[in-house]
Amino acid sequence: MRSVSGYAASEPGGRLRPFEFQRRDLRDDDVAVRVTHVGVCHSDLHAVDGLAPGAPPLVPGHEFTGEVTAVGADVTRFRVGDAVAVGNIVDSCGVCVNCLAHREPYCLEFPATTYGGRDLRDGSPTQGAYSTEYVVRDAFVYGLPAELDPAAVAPLMCAGVTTWAPLRRAGVGPGTQLGVVGLGGLGHLAVKFGVALGARVTVFTTSAAKAADARALGAHDVVVSTDAGAVAAVAGRLDVVLDTASGAHDLAPYLGALRLDGTLCVLGLPESYTVSPMALLGRSLTVSGSAGTAETQEMLDFCGAHGLTADVEVLPFAEVNTAFARLAANDVRWRFVLDVTRLTWPA
Amino acid sequence: MRSVSGYAASEPGGRLRPFEFQRRDLRDDDVAVRVTHVGVCHSDLHAVDGLAPGAPPLVPGHEFTGEVTAVGADVTRFRVGDAVAVGNIVDSCGVCVNCLAHREPYCLEFPATTYGGRDLRDGSPTQGAYSTEYVVRDAFVYGLPAELDPAAVAPLMCAGVTTWAPLRRAGVGPGTQLGVVGLGGLGHLAVKFGVALGARVTVFTTSAAKAADARALGAHDVVVSTDAGAVAAVAGRLDVVLDTASGAHDLAPYLGALRLDGTLCVLGLPESYTVSPMALLGRSLTVSGSAGTAETQEMLDFCGAHGLTADVEVLPFAEVNTAFARLAANDVRWRFVLDVTRLTWPA
Repeated sequence: MRSVSGYAASEPGGRLRPFEFQRRDLRDDDVAVRVTHVGVCHSDLHAVDGLAPGAPPLVPGHEFTGEVTAVGADVTRFRVGDAVAVGNIVDSCGVCVNCLAHREPYCLEFPATTYGGRDLRDGSPTQGAYSTEYVVRDAFVYGLPAELDPAAVAPLMCAGVTTWAPLRRAGVGPGTQLGVVGLGGLGHLAVKFGVALGARVTVFTTSAAKAADARALGAHDVVVSTDAGAVAAVAGRLDVVLDTASGAHDLAPYLGALRLDGTLCVLGLPESYTVSPMALLGRSLTVSGSAGTAETQEMLDFCGAHGLTADVEVLPFAEVNTAFARLAANDVRWRFVLDVTRLTWPA
Repeated sequence: MRSVSGYAASEPGGRLRPFEFQRRDLRDDDVAVRVTHVGVCHSDLHAVDGLAPGAPPLVPGHEFTGEVTAVGADVTRFRVGDAVAVGNIVDSCGVCVNCLAHREPYCLEFPATTYGGRDLRDGSPTQGAYSTEYVVRDAFVYGLPAELDPAAVAPLMCAGVTTWAPLRRAGVGPGTQLGVVGLGGLGHLAVKFGVALGARVTVFTTSAAKAADARALGAHDVVVSTDAGAVAAVAGRLDVVLDTASGAHDLAPYLGALRLDGTLCVLGLPESYTVSPMALLGRSLTVSGSAGTAETQEMLDFCGAHGLTADVEVLPFAEVNTAFARLAANDVRWRFVLDVTRLTWPA
């Protein structure tokens, strides 16, 4: 077994504390990655908030970059020293219809998530990348595009591909009128992708203060969602709207912004949506989850070609609780990344 | 003005009674059609049920066939004696983005409906095809395919194209796994279209007694919606589900029947849908309304080539109230059509 240092939570909403644990010895198709950078995703907060009292320690972290430190006997795609990236899925059955289509998050046997899941072979709980090393099946490791900052690539592995995949599936490209709802970790990448793909991008935000931020990211238009006149002015004009806002909210204004045959793609997963059939008449509503290996590789290739990464604020690993507190307060532009190499354990 | 005999309702849910009224003199782009057959659509019942007390008489009927009896000076597509068909839209602005795309029901200026609407030029109320003659702008008249029974074509003009258009937009063709929810006026045509397009068709029905009917129409599989085991067996297997059931109902079983990236297209318009985001994850929900002129012509061409029409029960015009009563009781296989040529007015 391989000794690893990390940060773990062990009570609902509690602070993360230093935690020593073991990774498995390498299987023939495994890659060991020394984690250098890991993004702080809203779902990490939710996972900690959702811990059961008395739960075993949980190490979050599912979007990370690092360096290969060892490979199993059958691994041919990677060598020691390679710069790599890993996202939120670390294994899947590989033989179901969805895996064969490289849409592994929809694996019919349920995939192994990077943390909070179960290893598919021995059933052991998975622990995340808020840790010095990760051991992962080679099929779920990606080469880091040259020239890109590893810190700014880490969030691409979850926030990035989660927005990239639905934009591509919706055919967003030159001339597309794209709406992006919400400007945060996901939304800021949706704007960047949309602009880089050649779309005209309209950002919907509840905060007028974010209008300048949106334009700085390349957005062409900004609609403050609470301004009924501005919302009405965009009615029927957009081809695709990607809704990155979390929590339950009214979808009607965004359906109303669509042209005939337009698509609203929602990323948030509240308890339920209440949708007016008239608002949906002639439009489509879809909910998109995580993306698969083919989409992830395609995104990384695109980002390499376009020099596109997340806008991040890098904090030393030991400031993980600061990152959590500020993220919970929405005080981030646009993603916290923990620098795991700056490891100074508290006394 | 042109004197016309028809049947009209003038109280909520009331009986239809003989009604004499006037049609406009022909404009240069008008066609006068002697109505021979008119389908009885559920929406005709709803329109009568929804009449305001003291409302002026309303003549329903928006899917009909007949013979051209006169044409305006500018009409070149039709001649006196031509067999023709007309649907539920009789005019639109013609210049908005949706009209230019031949999706006239979504005309941004709102189209003129065949009855219960307003003529776009003089604002007069439109009266429907439960009548001996209709006067309609030539752009909304279609040639009746040769060899097809005019009685059985009439329902194609509403029930037909309403199911045809979403099937085509969803790319239903050879190899498609298609689900059809509900076996009635719309559903029976969706089954016929799906089969003729080369799809494998699964019918969902709440009535086990309809299984044999479904198979007689060409359906390959039948799932009784109340049989949880049968519903579970089809989970994740269908590419497209067309939901023709009216009224509010649970969409979850039909979303669950879809494969990844599958589409549920709903035709009913209850007050609202409540949808679980998890049920919609990786799938699409769309609501489809009426179809436009290009889609209607395409459907008629297809029906002519395949000898495909509605399965109808033809009643004499004077039995319109019988048709309403039996349709309300769901006692029809699968569409009532009134034979307007069998006109024997009550004394």
